[in-house]
Amino acid sequence: MVKTSITNEIDKLKEIYAEYRDNALKDYFTFLKFKSISSEPDFQEQVLACADWVSAYLNKLGFEVQLWPTSGHPTIFAKNMKAGPNQPTLLIYNHYDVQPVDPLELWESPPFEPTLRNGQVYARGAQDNKGQCFYVLLALKALIEKAEGLPINIKLCIEGEEECGSTGLAQLLKTKGKDLRADYLAIVDLGLPNPSTPAITLGVRGLVTMDVEIKCSNSDLHSGSHGGLAFNPIHALVALLSSVRDASGKITIPGFYDDVVAISDEEKQQVSLAFDTKKYESNFGTKPTGGERALDPLERNWLRPTFEINGIKGGYSGEGFKTVIPAKAMAKVSCRLVPNQDPYKIGRLVANFLETRAPEGTEVAVHVNPGNGTAVRARPDSAIAKAFSKAYEEIYGNRCERIYSGASIPIVTQLAEVCQGEVILVGLGLETDCIHAPNEHFGLDRIEKGFLSIARTIQLLRR
Amino acid sequence: MVKTSITNEIDKLKEIYAEYRDNALKDYFTFLKFKSISSEPDFQEQVLACADWVSAYLNKLGFEVQLWPTSGHPTIFAKNMKAGPNQPTLLIYNHYDVQPVDPLELWESPPFEPTLRNGQVYARGAQDNKGQCFYVLLALKALIEKAEGLPINIKLCIEGEEECGSTGLAQLLKTKGKDLRADYLAIVDLGLPNPSTPAITLGVRGLVTMDVEIKCSNSDLHSGSHGGLAFNPIHALVALLSSVRDASGKITIPGFYDDVVAISDEEKQQVSLAFDTKKYESNFGTKPTGGERALDPLERNWLRPTFEINGIKGGYSGEGFKTVIPAKAMAKVSCRLVPNQDPYKIGRLVANFLETRAPEGTEVAVHVNPGNGTAVRARPDSAIAKAFSKAYEEIYGNRCERIYSGASIPIVTQLAEVCQGEVILVGLGLETDCIHAPNEHFGLDRIEKGFLSIARTIQLLRR
Repeated sequence: MVKTSITNEIDKLKEIYAEYRDNALKDYFTFLKFKSISSEPDFQEQVLACADWVSAYLNKLGFEVQLWPTSGHPTIFAKNMKAGPNQPTLLIYNHYDVQPVDPLELWESPPFEPTLRNGQVYARGAQDNKGQCFYVLLALKALIEKAEGLPINIKLCIEGEEECGSTGLAQLLKTKGKDLRADYLAIVDLGLPNPSTPAITLGVRGLVTMDVEIKCSNSDLHSGSHGGLAFNPIHALVALLSSVRDASGKITIPGFYDDVVAISDEEKQQVSLAFDTKKYESNFGTKPTGGERALDPLERNWLRPTFEINGIKGGYSGEGFKTVIPAKAMAKVSCRLVPNQDPYKIGRLVANFLETRAPEGTEVAVHVNPGNGTAVRARPDSAIAKAFSKAYEEIYGNRCERIYSGASIPIVTQLAEVCQGEVILVGLGLETDCIHAPNEHFGLDRIEKGFLSIARTIQLLRR
Repeated sequence: MVKTSITNEIDKLKEIYAEYRDNALKDYFTFLKFKSISSEPDFQEQVLACADWVSAYLNKLGFEVQLWPTSGHPTIFAKNMKAGPNQPTLLIYNHYDVQPVDPLELWESPPFEPTLRNGQVYARGAQDNKGQCFYVLLALKALIEKAEGLPINIKLCIEGEEECGSTGLAQLLKTKGKDLRADYLAIVDLGLPNPSTPAITLGVRGLVTMDVEIKCSNSDLHSGSHGGLAFNPIHALVALLSSVRDASGKITIPGFYDDVVAISDEEKQQVSLAFDTKKYESNFGTKPTGGERALDPLERNWLRPTFEINGIKGGYSGEGFKTVIPAKAMAKVSCRLVPNQDPYKIGRLVANFLETRAPEGTEVAVHVNPGNGTAVRARPDSAIAKAFSKAYEEIYGNRCERIYSGASIPIVTQLAEVCQGEVILVGLGLETDCIHAPNEHFGLDRIEKGFLSIARTIQLLRR
């Protein structure tokens, strides 16, 4: 490493960032104000307005922008191929949609009124993924305006359904293959193990989500007049759901683990990294006792499939008490998957397990939701992995680690196939960012570091 | 039975009813329009307005009315002692409060806009207990206005917290013992086995309700980033709740059945009555497969304790999907009890069972709600039981059966002790009335029969 040169390049980019910072913050806040909740039909117009704003931002920079319509929310496709055929093409993936916000009462400031407190921006999407999308946009803007254009060709695929299964983009991939072809694919939706350690992510888990409904009577019933007679669907539901995992946290559904492949030596090395249980407990107020107890925490989170109940509802849960036996009860469940596990196959396994075990007097229906994704693995020795690693090391002054993520980005496998380039998963998220939860936040320091990482990687990829 | 005389008395009362019918229906609808939901603090004013309306109704009839304040909603106490000391005193118990109305979307007409369809009045409280309270009021009005006053002394205790534990009335009983003393106590809040078979009820079950909360993390967590690490409180909840009953429906909590006394010969005779499973299924769309499978349906419902989950909630259950591991989850559970089981003792048994089985990484807190009641048994050979039986037989032309109810009227035991009179449980509810559920309804034919039964019983009790 030639220390002086490194300092110079990063320092130059830092100077540019300082110049852009104040206006950038305004743009970032505007981006965050759109209520682009993709899973709730009521917010459709806000999702579209958000897509329009991003499109206009890229348009002004000279990108050729297309808003690809889908059965759901549109995908933004943009390209700038001015570097010419002798330079490589990098496809960057982000998403502009966000998670729902409830429980709303736990937010310290309204989720769509971004608020700066102690250097952290609090808002739904502040990190996932508007924050990480925004530093990409800002890096492109600065390179175009301050560095005489982009040194390589850039394509952007910014979808609006990441938080609800990527159904639309999955359809688009069947017809837009040529547009999305690139030498490299960077998924900028991941994170770091801690604030001072840069890392590239070599894998994410797959995901399948299911809706479970149990029906018993044709109407809610009085728990006195019918208690001991009518089968209570909540009892059926808790019995069924609790039978999916044994006391050790292992999933009991026959065949569930059949397609799981043995963990590689490299993977084994990574998950044997020390996991800071104390820090986890102080961050989240709970011990890392979920999942398969017999395994190490990182193995459970990175490399093993899970069964999770994401929502449950039945009967009366308001203030006071209602002595009711409800007519039905429901749950939302999901499985995180590892390489070689097929989402639909696993979804049907779970569905069959639950449906065939419905107690007499109950009807269990499980809907396996479409648009779920397989697990992904990235090669650590690719040019794009190396460029990001180098950029991160220059910015952080630390060795860049190789990690995995327990999360899922449903579309990555298919997108990588269509792109045909080398894939890498990066990002500056921290596990304390409260994504998908109240008080989601992202640090302004990470907007800057993200900006630097994207700009510097693009420079490093120049041939 | 002297057929002619019977026909005469009932026919006279029927003529009086016909005269009152139209105006009575208006009063009944007015009573039903009050949103007197006692368990939801938002409705406090409506509960009070309802109490005022009932008080005014009785005042106009010449009753001496008192609105007894409590820590919650007031109890209406009214008396008419004009029959003098040579005549017995009958204390009648009703309640003017109602259950919550959700799920609101399942009501075919708004719950507080009473609607007449095919001879049935649809509204929250149409039966439980405003309908049954109203025919009592109407019978008193008619006897006073048309029969030269009441032949016996009447006291009324109409409470406003039956649906939320009778806490206020329980307090009042400590100081109002003298007011409530009577020769007979009629609890007019029960039902019949079918529309054509009259019956008196010889027992109701006790009740204890509990709120269960499980906490894990200090914030909702992403089910990808934390799946396999954080303990999901919904998993803990379903595992705990499903462990309370075994596959046969028997409750597994040590000591739960310890205080249950052997069923008497008379009880055994009653529960061996044929239970019409086909009819139950056609009425409610479900088989009577709840409770302890090894026992007969009527034994399970009338004479055995239950554990019921009345509500459960955790995570995201709206439209779409949210891949969340929630910070906490909750349930509302209750037990119906049989004679000799103490509500608080059973509540603590359940609470200890759940709290001490909290998996590592979770905190389980169970709140045993106050104001729950013990089971009640009435003597079938008392004067009041005989009077009601005779009145019913005259009205229906059928033998009056002796039944039990699986439901609970929390305050009855204490009220009977304070009253010091002979207790009986009566009413014209049917299991198809959808009480505590959407589309609660009560037939106009039963308003008439209820009117007749109260008026005739009062006549029969005259010395």
